[in-house]
Amino acid sequence: MRATLIYGAGDIRVEDAPDPSLKETTDALVRVTTACICGSDLHPYHSMSPADGPSRIGHEFIGIVEDTGSEVTTFKKGDLVVAPFAWSDGTCDFCREGLQTACEHGGFWARNGIDGGQGEAVRVPLADGTLVKLPVEESSPLIPSLLTLSDVYGTGWHAATKGGVNEGTTVTVIGDGAVGLLSVLSARELGAERIILMGRHQTRTDLGREFGATDVVAERGDEGVEKVRELTGGQGSHVVLEAVGHLPAYQQAYGVVRPGGTISRVGAPQYEEAPIGFGSLFGGNITLTGGPAPARAYVETLMPSVLDGTVDPGRVFDRTVDLEDIADGYRAMADREALKVLVRP
Amino acid sequence: MRATLIYGAGDIRVEDAPDPSLKETTDALVRVTTACICGSDLHPYHSMSPADGPSRIGHEFIGIVEDTGSEVTTFKKGDLVVAPFAWSDGTCDFCREGLQTACEHGGFWARNGIDGGQGEAVRVPLADGTLVKLPVEESSPLIPSLLTLSDVYGTGWHAATKGGVNEGTTVTVIGDGAVGLLSVLSARELGAERIILMGRHQTRTDLGREFGATDVVAERGDEGVEKVRELTGGQGSHVVLEAVGHLPAYQQAYGVVRPGGTISRVGAPQYEEAPIGFGSLFGGNITLTGGPAPARAYVETLMPSVLDGTVDPGRVFDRTVDLEDIADGYRAMADREALKVLVRP
Repeated sequence: MRATLIYGAGDIRVEDAPDPSLKETTDALVRVTTACICGSDLHPYHSMSPADGPSRIGHEFIGIVEDTGSEVTTFKKGDLVVAPFAWSDGTCDFCREGLQTACEHGGFWARNGIDGGQGEAVRVPLADGTLVKLPVEESSPLIPSLLTLSDVYGTGWHAATKGGVNEGTTVTVIGDGAVGLLSVLSARELGAERIILMGRHQTRTDLGREFGATDVVAERGDEGVEKVRELTGGQGSHVVLEAVGHLPAYQQAYGVVRPGGTISRVGAPQYEEAPIGFGSLFGGNITLTGGPAPARAYVETLMPSVLDGTVDPGRVFDRTVDLEDIADGYRAMADREALKVLVRP
Repeated sequence: MRATLIYGAGDIRVEDAPDPSLKETTDALVRVTTACICGSDLHPYHSMSPADGPSRIGHEFIGIVEDTGSEVTTFKKGDLVVAPFAWSDGTCDFCREGLQTACEHGGFWARNGIDGGQGEAVRVPLADGTLVKLPVEESSPLIPSLLTLSDVYGTGWHAATKGGVNEGTTVTVIGDGAVGLLSVLSARELGAERIILMGRHQTRTDLGREFGATDVVAERGDEGVEKVRELTGGQGSHVVLEAVGHLPAYQQAYGVVRPGGTISRVGAPQYEEAPIGFGSLFGGNITLTGGPAPARAYVETLMPSVLDGTVDPGRVFDRTVDLEDIADGYRAMADREALKVLVRP
């Protein structure tokens, strides 16, 4: 089959890879019908050393079940399924608590010999725990929105729920990428009336306004912080959803959060050490939460509103490429020509 | 009057200071009858530069109201009152939400010309918001326990409630000082059945067991982390209450916390930067919370159990000194001869 590999920063190639086959009795083979490129794929695209490559890549996909291991009971050949960005058994303590990204037997795509999502097919471990059947046809116009359940919508939802967003909270979202915009959508779904979006790409912040942002702050750093403080009567924002992952975004987060408020991070941090002492988090009793979203936990919650058209998170996709042209999709996202790129194998 | 001043590390002196008098119509004058030394007073005692001194010190006291400004309505001359470690108006948004340490018009004792608690008298700003009347006599044997409402019991309670302790949580408390021990007591009051206390001073951990600790881990660092992980079936502790404030205690906290769990800090951090990236907090979806406890918010909640004898948090006091001998009290706490020292002006 054909699959995407990353050889290092800026070096994406589509090559022949071994056709996947069932290895464990709990596996399913899935032929990928729709995949996409994630903002977090841009981190290695920007900085990966060639010494760490080549490596498979991609962790969001919808596809058709082609074969199943003998212990798989939930799926059969021909089912259309969505895969969350972590695979998980669905039965361990953490899965049962809804934290599938900490599954005791699970893991992530494109690591340790597991296929990546940006290819023609994937061997899905622990299929019963991992996959969710989609009640639509492969050709449904809802496919882009359903694909966001594999990561970006679930991640925005995770940010908002971990942050404790509700009717009474003023929310600031940092970042106008797909996760930031779907954090806005999630905050609105959870009832927030005041949603301030910090971002400076107008086509994106315009979509953010359609998703529910009531204010847009294009300024960054101290100037952006000052602007949000003005908008919140000097007190700051009850909840801050940080959907970037770089240190300046975190610094912006504790700059705009209200005493007693919460910063919820879902942008994978590209730093390890950061300020958390008296002057940043402690003095104001700020709560810091978030992490890799257990997207699997949210699929059943979020799918109905997608199916009935209440929400249309698939609007974050503004370009489609064939698998063979995926390198151009990466380039377009890195150059901010495209917000999020759909990939058709 | 006589009052305590800190001139620098290890240099505590009792000197003549101006008698306080009413300045604002919202002030009360309080003659201090009982004060004490806090673990957090030891931070400047260990490290304060003489260039930053001399400075008044002390933030926990009970006393008798001697006079009140014309706008004070809640108290009258002769009332016995306890003061929390922050003064606050009781009426701003933050006070009404129960976060008096973020009061828009409040502040902390012994700063910016405000008296410290370790002296014969204190001018109390915003008396109606700050003070709470005690329904006992000055000579009551409950005074030590009631004095813990000014800080250490409220701080332990803050740690436990912000950490989300309940019947279903395994709790690990880091630190066997007064706040750590009262975090244990608070966790037990909130229903935790498994409470692991990390501390290595046996007289203190013995008191911790009486307060509700079910396990004691004397080891520190990696060895201590390993021990707690063993005690929790390899998963770690749902909630970690960090009652020390030094970086190794925080590192221990993220070492023992369970994926999806919460670290609640109440030890004033003696660091600003610390790990919060993928390998420490983010990867496991760990929540970090806590800060300076709004002790004022908890007085009414905690006082009934003190008054009816259900709890006896005053057991953390194991030494009493006269004000003139307070320097020896500091020395005894710094040398770990004493757990917490009561001061009689």
